[in-house]
Amino acid sequence: MTIGIGLLGLGTVGAGVAGILATPSGRHPLVAELDLRRVAVRDLTRLRPVELAAELLTTNPEAVVDDPAVDIVVEVMGGLEPARSLILRAIAAGKPVVTANKAVIARYGEEIAAAAAEQGVYVLIEAAVGGGIPIIEPLKQSLGANRIQRVSGIINGTTNYILSRMAAEGAAYADVLAEAQRLGYAEADPAADVQGGDAADKIAILAGLAYGGSVPRAAIPTEGIDRLEARDVAYAAQLGYVVKLLAVAQAMPNLNQGAEQLLDVRVHPTLLPKAHPLAGVNGVNNAILVEGDPVGQVMFYGPGAGAGPTASAVVADILNIAGIRQATAGSAKPPLDPLLAAGSWRACRLVDSAETTHRNYVRLRTSDEAGVIGKIGTCFGEAGVSIQSIVQFETQSAGDAEIVVITHDVCEANFRQALAAIEALADVQAVAACLRTL
Amino acid sequence: MTIGIGLLGLGTVGAGVAGILATPSGRHPLVAELDLRRVAVRDLTRLRPVELAAELLTTNPEAVVDDPAVDIVVEVMGGLEPARSLILRAIAAGKPVVTANKAVIARYGEEIAAAAAEQGVYVLIEAAVGGGIPIIEPLKQSLGANRIQRVSGIINGTTNYILSRMAAEGAAYADVLAEAQRLGYAEADPAADVQGGDAADKIAILAGLAYGGSVPRAAIPTEGIDRLEARDVAYAAQLGYVVKLLAVAQAMPNLNQGAEQLLDVRVHPTLLPKAHPLAGVNGVNNAILVEGDPVGQVMFYGPGAGAGPTASAVVADILNIAGIRQATAGSAKPPLDPLLAAGSWRACRLVDSAETTHRNYVRLRTSDEAGVIGKIGTCFGEAGVSIQSIVQFETQSAGDAEIVVITHDVCEANFRQALAAIEALADVQAVAACLRTL
Repeated sequence: MTIGIGLLGLGTVGAGVAGILATPSGRHPLVAELDLRRVAVRDLTRLRPVELAAELLTTNPEAVVDDPAVDIVVEVMGGLEPARSLILRAIAAGKPVVTANKAVIARYGEEIAAAAAEQGVYVLIEAAVGGGIPIIEPLKQSLGANRIQRVSGIINGTTNYILSRMAAEGAAYADVLAEAQRLGYAEADPAADVQGGDAADKIAILAGLAYGGSVPRAAIPTEGIDRLEARDVAYAAQLGYVVKLLAVAQAMPNLNQGAEQLLDVRVHPTLLPKAHPLAGVNGVNNAILVEGDPVGQVMFYGPGAGAGPTASAVVADILNIAGIRQATAGSAKPPLDPLLAAGSWRACRLVDSAETTHRNYVRLRTSDEAGVIGKIGTCFGEAGVSIQSIVQFETQSAGDAEIVVITHDVCEANFRQALAAIEALADVQAVAACLRTL
Repeated sequence: MTIGIGLLGLGTVGAGVAGILATPSGRHPLVAELDLRRVAVRDLTRLRPVELAAELLTTNPEAVVDDPAVDIVVEVMGGLEPARSLILRAIAAGKPVVTANKAVIARYGEEIAAAAAEQGVYVLIEAAVGGGIPIIEPLKQSLGANRIQRVSGIINGTTNYILSRMAAEGAAYADVLAEAQRLGYAEADPAADVQGGDAADKIAILAGLAYGGSVPRAAIPTEGIDRLEARDVAYAAQLGYVVKLLAVAQAMPNLNQGAEQLLDVRVHPTLLPKAHPLAGVNGVNNAILVEGDPVGQVMFYGPGAGAGPTASAVVADILNIAGIRQATAGSAKPPLDPLLAAGSWRACRLVDSAETTHRNYVRLRTSDEAGVIGKIGTCFGEAGVSIQSIVQFETQSAGDAEIVVITHDVCEANFRQALAAIEALADVQAVAACLRTL
């Protein structure tokens, strides 16, 4: 049973997919039944890493979606539009969709899922998070017995590369970013990566699957690494931590016992104890730690980006659709497999961040006077913020001191109140850095 | 659509499964549609960690399989018989099976798969390897686009616990084993764990799925940790390695270009460089590293045993069967999804171990004479074995020396030839230890 594949986009990922389909030997035998029938490109004349018959190519992506020989539409063009419209067009035509487009899924996932449910087609998105790491399908198909307590991940390779080098070399953020751009690990406009937006897209998707409900992407508190100073990475190391850009989605107790799941979802640089499973994830690798009852902690690790890994995930999705097509071959309009389709099954709501509790790392620039630590400690104490450690670090400039405080798990509102009081102290020149701590 | 579950066995895993089914709230909504209808136990009067209506229990496992109210048979009794016969009986009755029984699957997997294919039923085995870690389904459903180069794993929690403590404390194997038995981490008869048989069962299963063909379990070269000495763990650490019991399945080039896949499958204590992704996996945790083209390296990490994690995997399998039942609800005898069913699609054959290449760690007890290292180096050189390092370690007894050699990647036959020549040297008292090195 040959299955016709239509490809929207022939960039690095698209070329990777085409390359796999063209070389089925040694892969799962279903790969040999996938037939690439139409490919939408921007420019017909560009040289490509993969050889394709000229008649496959078109500059009209709608022609790919509409082609009756195309059974599955694979969207790897990226960007919000026309990707979103093309996905919806494929669904409307009753064609299953595979997409690597985290931005579209994070923003229009509800719209797309509703359309897919109505038409009874699958929209699979393994490549949208974690590159080649199987994480979407395991969340959908292997962890359903669990009450998920927390999903936390290093899910942006660019920032992890930058942070790994900052930690290894004591280098400044701007220098490493420039180097990463030169090496192709960071884009010319790095904003989506370094400001945390890409990680927020991905945690919105993971949280939606882990908790069975749509998460409002725009409401996710997001902090990037673009204001992170090398000294905080160095101080963290001295205190036994590494700094990672963590995306976290955590279940909160719902006090009014509604069916609604309260979630604390956020993206921010985070101090991880060196023994934490995510602390050793370096370079462009990604890892996602899922904590659930009764499974405990499971972690998924691997290359978070790149043509090969991402294409591996895209083709896995195509194979899953091909597999279920075989299983339902006798049926004209078969019902969806609820695990593979992964529809919403409860409402999720983000908590007010003031109500969340976290451990915090705070770096204060103060005058080097006796009694400063006492005054700072008093401010924390009066706000009900209990402290794990206060350490004074030496600075270059005479008369100044740097004090690093690590708190216990404290209520965000109390912590902010303490910081306001500390900022008002005459001896405190600035709250120079404030990071979350696991 | 309620689905009737029949449970064979109500030990720790069975009780874990029953516990999940009894508390569906907060789990995937499909869990609520699973109805535990019959449970086979050995002793009706025993106290259990989970409360079940007395009429569910029976001491006759065949009655569970045969019960028309039972749609899915879950085998968590362990052991070869009657587990194998009951699985086959369920298949013959057209009932899908979920089993956590690695011993049965490693030995009778082909027989069971053939019966399942003929009857058109699924036999799912996520819990058979890696406890709660999703590894079976990802191999089947998420990595099919890849040519798998290697699967290597720490897949026995007992031995990893023992090795972790030997490394951390410099303790002797026998002492740590006794302590592990006292704490319940090792069985009273630890043979299957410490001699590597359990890991061999599991790598046979993983290799079968990764390479799409049955692997002869009995032919897997298997070495356990029961003869490992504390000093080798200590020397390895000094040289930058940790010792882990690794189970490895590796694709070998097939020179006669047949469809047959040549594999090097083995279980043995292995020196891993400290920076290797598997080197940091400690205690009873498991991790499986899959290397493939084009995905690169992906790793799956988590609790390798225990009631909760294993029950999580068992219920995941039940959910997958329930999901595909929904998708094929209109069809009286639907075809199998080839990914979920994971039938064989090529022949696999183990290579002659003499033809394999590996890096090796060798510890020699020698007389403390000048020139010994030269003679040893000459023996390796004459056999064509190239050496990465030779280090002499101090010993307690005067006149004796211990020399540790780490080779490059060398042909096993050449290596054995070198060892024979070295053993014949007058200055060499013994080849005291011989371990593989990554």
